[in-house]
Amino acid sequence: MTSEAAAIPTGTNPTAAVLVIGNEILSGRTKDANLGHIAEKLTEIGVRLREARVVPDVEEEVVAAVNALRARYTYVFTTGGIGPTHDDITAACVAKAFGVALERNPEAMARLERHYAAGQLNEARLRMANVPAGGILIDNPISQAPGFQIGNVFVMAGVPNIMRAMLDGILPRLAGGPALHARTVACELGEGVIAAELSALQDRHPALEIGSYPYFRNGFFGVSLVLRGTDEAEVTGAADELAEIIRGLGGTPTVTVGTKG
Amino acid sequence: MTSEAAAIPTGTNPTAAVLVIGNEILSGRTKDANLGHIAEKLTEIGVRLREARVVPDVEEEVVAAVNALRARYTYVFTTGGIGPTHDDITAACVAKAFGVALERNPEAMARLERHYAAGQLNEARLRMANVPAGGILIDNPISQAPGFQIGNVFVMAGVPNIMRAMLDGILPRLAGGPALHARTVACELGEGVIAAELSALQDRHPALEIGSYPYFRNGFFGVSLVLRGTDEAEVTGAADELAEIIRGLGGTPTVTVGTKG
Repeated sequence: MTSEAAAIPTGTNPTAAVLVIGNEILSGRTKDANLGHIAEKLTEIGVRLREARVVPDVEEEVVAAVNALRARYTYVFTTGGIGPTHDDITAACVAKAFGVALERNPEAMARLERHYAAGQLNEARLRMANVPAGGILIDNPISQAPGFQIGNVFVMAGVPNIMRAMLDGILPRLAGGPALHARTVACELGEGVIAAELSALQDRHPALEIGSYPYFRNGFFGVSLVLRGTDEAEVTGAADELAEIIRGLGGTPTVTVGTKG
Repeated sequence: MTSEAAAIPTGTNPTAAVLVIGNEILSGRTKDANLGHIAEKLTEIGVRLREARVVPDVEEEVVAAVNALRARYTYVFTTGGIGPTHDDITAACVAKAFGVALERNPEAMARLERHYAAGQLNEARLRMANVPAGGILIDNPISQAPGFQIGNVFVMAGVPNIMRAMLDGILPRLAGGPALHARTVACELGEGVIAAELSALQDRHPALEIGSYPYFRNGFFGVSLVLRGTDEAEVTGAADELAEIIRGLGGTPTVTVGTKG
């Protein structure tokens, strides 16, 4: 039995990291609702999310995390910290991470001017038009104040419905990768019963990512075994092998397309 | 207006990081349900959660994250990767991070022997008794297979109800810090309307952490302004100041104890 899981086979797939910025997540006040959504959307287009971090609203922490992640992954997606208040420091931190000036972006300012009634666009709100030099705006169809892209870093709002709208606008401009195919083989055997043969299956299919997720639902314990990879024939073939293994152990496998079974 | 939020005043409070280990979180298959819970529990005992990371089931990633975080924070809490299957590599990775052997722990083995019926404790399940040398067991009242503490690192299960039970057992052994007091001042003004005076309030109270969280509920937009700190008199005094500021801007403040208002 190996003590090391197979590395995720990224192959030619672009990689990504998510950086969640905000004290409220770390204090437990607010439960993050963005990471799982971004993960699903990236997986759909063949981008491999490889890491996520949550950091507080502290300049040196944000700058260090942006620089660590942008050097390592194809794309970095940040959420949070782009509003009008003193604790919204993301734009300034990203400018510092890239070593560029933070500028008042004319197009962002024009959008805010159209959005706010006369006299309402005060200095605090104008901060939301501050974008690192060279940044490209990310549309915000909900409340206008834009996000931005600079280099491989995409800066989005933390409010979930705004973040989702921004991400919908970003996804078409990303280079994706080969589609990731998945099958889930579920059964009501214990994880420990099937572990040895599952490990052998993983060894026979190093290009696949095979995960084992125990569950308890409708009064029954069981395990969902998820097989993922870019070669659909290998994924379905390995799922068939696994179903046969489960039958050999006295179980009744249920094979479904995707990862949710 | 400052472009840098006040650093979280950790004062004499111990600090912590959470490390979530698992491909399933990064693929979006499983939504993490542990970070928010750990954050809340640590905040209650005056431990400041300062960072969280999610990494895949890849040895070098887990080892690097464990070592980066344990050097930086008082406590590190990991979730996930301690089951019986090939993708459960956390114990081996933590042993490697600490440069110690991974050993079969006699007490852990005894617990598994009591839990499983005769003949059911196979080699795969015995892997759940592997603990880095010097590790102290963390009780698992749900399914017996223990977590462990080594140095300042606490290794817990990823299944939420097991993780919660393990954490309940750990919390009494942690040195907490001064209690963190919080008040939330909510009103139906826009964030941008109050931003300038809020920033000035933060400048007058550098020992407090003041966060601004816009909301939309019951058909109304508004903002919750959260003030946190270890000096309760300063927290309540600043909340009173803020309520007065809001009244001055034509708003109607609602002050509640805690961070949820």
